[in-house]
Amino acid sequence: MQGGGCVVDNVTLQFQEMRPHEIEKKSFEIIEKELGDTKLDPVQEPIIKRVIHTTADFDYVENLCFSKGAVTTMQDAIRSGACIVTDTQMAKAGINKKELAKYGGEVFCFMGDEDVAAAAKKNGSTRAAASMEKAAAMGQKFIFVVGNAPTALIQLYELMQKGRVSPWGIIGVPVGFVNVTEAKELILGVEVPYIVAKGRKGGSNVAAAICNALLYAMAD
Amino acid sequence: MQGGGCVVDNVTLQFQEMRPHEIEKKSFEIIEKELGDTKLDPVQEPIIKRVIHTTADFDYVENLCFSKGAVTTMQDAIRSGACIVTDTQMAKAGINKKELAKYGGEVFCFMGDEDVAAAAKKNGSTRAAASMEKAAAMGQKFIFVVGNAPTALIQLYELMQKGRVSPWGIIGVPVGFVNVTEAKELILGVEVPYIVAKGRKGGSNVAAAICNALLYAMAD
Repeated sequence: MQGGGCVVDNVTLQFQEMRPHEIEKKSFEIIEKELGDTKLDPVQEPIIKRVIHTTADFDYVENLCFSKGAVTTMQDAIRSGACIVTDTQMAKAGINKKELAKYGGEVFCFMGDEDVAAAAKKNGSTRAAASMEKAAAMGQKFIFVVGNAPTALIQLYELMQKGRVSPWGIIGVPVGFVNVTEAKELILGVEVPYIVAKGRKGGSNVAAAICNALLYAMAD
Repeated sequence: MQGGGCVVDNVTLQFQEMRPHEIEKKSFEIIEKELGDTKLDPVQEPIIKRVIHTTADFDYVENLCFSKGAVTTMQDAIRSGACIVTDTQMAKAGINKKELAKYGGEVFCFMGDEDVAAAAKKNGSTRAAASMEKAAAMGQKFIFVVGNAPTALIQLYELMQKGRVSPWGIIGVPVGFVNVTEAKELILGVEVPYIVAKGRKGGSNVAAAICNALLYAMAD
């Protein structure tokens, strides 16, 4: 592709000719400019900005909630080789697995597993909830990244209440209209480090963006 | 997971006990209720609603633009076995490939290919743009699904202008701050069937949601 102008319907649209890495830099400059005088916690700032970069939605300035020390605690966990469990293949696809692997971590998503499908069917629950059960049964400490199913977040909460799972942290950003807001409110009450998008909004893209922002801030 | 109530900080949050398929049904009922008297084209309606379901963002009622007959043309292409090329692994992960395979189609994403990385480096372009070049060189008719990179959309436009590619349709929903709005405006000027999210918003989740809505409406 060449930069420059393209003629459409007699209107010439000008494209700035930029190298790929410059596009991201310019995007973050625009986000900063539009944030104006908004005060952000410097540790949370790269995460909030990357979510806006991913969604073009400034609502996340208000929506994103961080427990005290959540960012550094999760980064320390990653540094010590923590793995990630997510409820969506899309988030798994979006997380920078190469960057995570530098510290020894990997990303798991059990949503397509046959045993998870069978357990969900048996219990009349969702595969997302059953996939959290599966992770808990592995007896390993994970960072849980929920980008789709509120039922995963509710299941995680119940497993924590029963002492059956003890996450390094929770990124709780499911999206939707049924039980989503309520499920996130549950997580706002726990002692585990969390990053949660309050309200209905979120998604697998937001989930991956938060993970990547944690990783990129570690590399800076 | 059991339905019912969970006690948090002395507040009991009630969760409606619902089977998985009921959650989606209830979500669409809420969306319909909140849309109120908004008039939607009946062919476009399932696509607009599924994007809102995926994003919890009602802006898409205004943002989504359909060329005349875009939905039925793309559905006919899928029915005849059309394959999809996308610029993001996340969209590939999110598209219902099982449903698409019923008609003989599959989803390609060339973003991770070595020849694409090499071509991008050589030309100083993005891998997304180079991946569109690769698709064009295959000499096959595709539905192009751009959920991330405006450079992919601009490249696609230029390839069409040169007669080097003739898509079945374009789903143009990249997200971001640099050249994104302009790249989408380009596509609004072409003769090829398109579904475009005007403005900055979009993303791989929106891209996958549109593909899946096309597929699910075919199955209904």
